[in-house]
Formats: sequence, structure tokens, C-alpha cells
Amino acid sequence: MPRYKLTIEYDGTPFVGWQRQNNGPSVQAALEQALHRFCGETVMTYAAGRTDSGVHALGQVVHFDLTKDWPAETVRNALNYHLRPQPIAVLASEAVPAIFHARSSAKARRYVYRILNRHAPPTVTRNRVWHVHVPLDAGAMHEAAQALLGMHDFSTFRGSYCQAKSPVRTLDRLDAVRSGEEIRVEAQARSFLQHQVRNMVGSLRLVGEGKWTTADLAAALAARDRTKGGPTAPPDGLYLVEVLY
Amino acid sequence: MPRYKLTIEYDGTPFVGWQRQNNGPSVQAALEQALHRFCGETVMTYAAGRTDSGVHALGQVVHFDLTKDWPAETVRNALNYHLRPQPIAVLASEAVPAIFHARSSAKARRYVYRILNRHAPPTVTRNRVWHVHVPLDAGAMHEAAQALLGMHDFSTFRGSYCQAKSPVRTLDRLDAVRSGEEIRVEAQARSFLQHQVRNMVGSLRLVGEGKWTTADLAAALAARDRTKGGPTAPPDGLYLVEVLY
Repeated sequence: MPRYKLTIEYDGTPFVGWQRQNNGPSVQAALEQALHRFCGETVMTYAAGRTDSGVHALGQVVHFDLTKDWPAETVRNALNYHLRPQPIAVLASEAVPAIFHARSSAKARRYVYRILNRHAPPTVTRNRVWHVHVPLDAGAMHEAAQALLGMHDFSTFRGSYCQAKSPVRTLDRLDAVRSGEEIRVEAQARSFLQHQVRNMVGSLRLVGEGKWTTADLAAALAARDRTKGGPTAPPDGLYLVEVLY
Repeated sequence: MPRYKLTIEYDGTPFVGWQRQNNGPSVQAALEQALHRFCGETVMTYAAGRTDSGVHALGQVVHFDLTKDWPAETVRNALNYHLRPQPIAVLASEAVPAIFHARSSAKARRYVYRILNRHAPPTVTRNRVWHVHVPLDAGAMHEAAQALLGMHDFSTFRGSYCQAKSPVRTLDRLDAVRSGEEIRVEAQARSFLQHQVRNMVGSLRLVGEGKWTTADLAAALAARDRTKGGPTAPPDGLYLVEVLY
């Protein structure tokens, strides 16, 4: 059974998320349906990150097995054909050894969170950014973010439906950088808890507004209590950018 | 009668264009309706560029007169409120002297055309870029583009419904620059003919594919004949970025 690794991009807006669910269209179901149309097989796909409803991907990684040995480029082209008109695209396809697993082989995941920080609402970036109309101090956000780096119990930033056994994660990078009207928050870790990036960004917003100091953010982390964290940032601004193996 | 100048941004996808028409929703009609809801007046608005259906604006400039003297910030905030949920936003508003005219006072217009140059179709940038799946040589496009600079009869790149009296225009800048999978073409001139940027980009694509040389592009310009130009690039990738006064 040849195994394939795909790098895929999608607009998360119309989907209930990566994972197949009963309450609406998922990226996984769309991809598995396209695979079925391509080769007639009923295939199970596995993704590196189970993105939530409305969360986008620029570099999600997926693996699956096929019975027949297709050229990787044929798989890519056929899937892009059968995925139309859904906003999911296969950027790259390659054959990989059977020990490769999109989720468990991943060494790091990189997310970007885009905040549009201006008075006027978004137009061309609607559903692609979080619109925050009060002025944010990106420098203060970046400085405070450094207090979250390293290995910690991230219960304060953990979603209530998180299925991970442990709330301990190692955060390698959390940068906030302004570029004109936009603030981009980049987060990198081996893995994240459910809603961890969105919950960290929601707390960083409080720092950006001047409501929280770096010490307040550090205290929230130390409390290991979700009720001590800031609100959850909406999914619109979140992108799974890259998975490293 | 106080005169106001607005800088506005919009997603052109759902509109028939800037100008009010009978065949669908226009940016102009939406803005004039929002003005009516705000102050009860029936106001005529004038824009710097009559963008076509599907063309976006990041910095369109509009002027109009009101009977009452409102603070400029009130006008901006009220319009952003009444424009919802349409993808039009007022970025800035200011009171200007009555001699200011958004179209005729403009000294230069700057457009950007975005080409997504990769195999896979767009997802998060759907309706925001022109998808060209064959590899393009941006360096060759940029070099050839320089042959169009200066004052010329641009009939080769003129739309058939163009209402301008003269086909002569002075092109100040036409740059093609690649950034990853995207090629951005930046064009600046005092004014452009109808479809001029899209028609120039359609011809530059032929250069990028290696079908045309710089000499072919120069010969097309010299022919002053639309049938000698390349095809018209779609509206999706075009943005009116800035109007200079």
C-alpha cells in the first residue's frame, strides 16, 4: 500500500473544521470524497492539525494509503480537479515511507494569527483577519508574549473540549509584529492544545490594549485556570502555515 | 455646502463596479444609500477611478457635498455603520475646499495587479488574484514592461467602451515583481484608459510565458490596434491602491 503525503491549503470559512462531523461540511470529508472520485477507493486521511471551524490552512499536511501506485503528480492534479469548486487546493504531493504519519511524525507546527488593527472594518480580508478597532501596542504584545515561551502547563489557554492527555506543552516561538494596519502573531511549538493559539492571542490583545501587563500575562499562565485567561480570539485570523518533520 | 473627501476600500466581487447601473449593485449606489440613511440627503458622489465589476479598491477616493457641516470623523463612523454588511469601508474622511474634485484634481493613480503563479488554484485568495498555472518569468515581464513607459497612444490596450477623448496617456511606472508564488504588477499614471491595466497585464503574461519578447510588446504598442494586444486579464487581481493629489 503506497503512502502519500499532501501539503494542502484551504479557506476554513465554509467548513466545520478539518475533522469529519455530522453538523456540516468538513475539509476531511471533501478530500476523501475527491479521493474516491479519483480512484474509486474509500480512503481514510490523517492531518497534522485538526483545525477548527473557520480556521485556515496554508500548509496543512495530510497522509493516506492507496492500493495502486500512482505518480505523486497525478494524485495532486486529480485531487485539484475533483476538489473544485471547494476552496481546498493540493499544493504538493509525494510518496512517503509507511512509517510516516502526518500527525505523530510532526516535529513542529507553525501558526500565524492576523489582526487587522484599524477603525474601519475589513473588506477584501473579511473572514481572513480578526478586526480589532482599538489601537494595539504590538511592541508590548511581543514583549509579553516572551513570558509564555518554554515548557509550561498551558491549562489557562486550553479549550474545554481539548482531548490531549497532558496540558504541558513547549512553546518555541511567539512573536507579534506590526506591518501597517496589520499585526501578525507567529506561534511555533511541537504541538498545541485545542484553542491554545486563539486563547493566547485573546490574552495578548488585552496586553496590546494596555489592560494587562507582562506580569498579568505571566500570572494568568501560572494560574493554570482557563477562567484567568483572556477571551478566545475568533477563528477567522488563524492560519496553520507549516508543519515541520 | 461643505465638501467631503473619503478614502474607501472595497471588495469588488459582488458589485457591477463603482458606477451606478441598472444591472446590479454598485459601490456608488451603496455609498449614496448609506449617506441617505445617515443624514437624509440625496447626495451625488464622484470617484477618482470608475473601477469595473470585480475590481477592488484599497484607496479609492470619493467626494460629495452635504448641506450640514458634520465633523469628518462622524461622517466616517456613520457611513461605516450604515454600509454594513456590504464589503465597503471608509478608511478616512476629511473636509476639503469646494475646488477639490476626486477625479479631475487627481495627479496620479496607482494600481496593483496580483497574479497567483502556481499549479494549485487559489483558496484564501479566491476572487483576489489571477490564477496563472504556467510558470511566468517575472524578470522578463518587468524588463518588457519598461517599453510601455512614457507618453504613447495606448489604443492597443484600450477597452472598447472607453469614453476618453484621447488614447494618449503617460505611463510613469510599470513594475513586475515576484514574491514567492505571487507576481505583483504595479502601474502608475496620471490617468488610465478603460481596461488599460488589465490589457497591459494580459500582454505581460505572454512575455512571462515566453510567447512574446520585449520587441513584440513594443510592436503591439506601436500598432495602436487592440487586436494586436494580448487578452484582457480578469478583474479579480486588480486593485486601485492609491490616488495622489
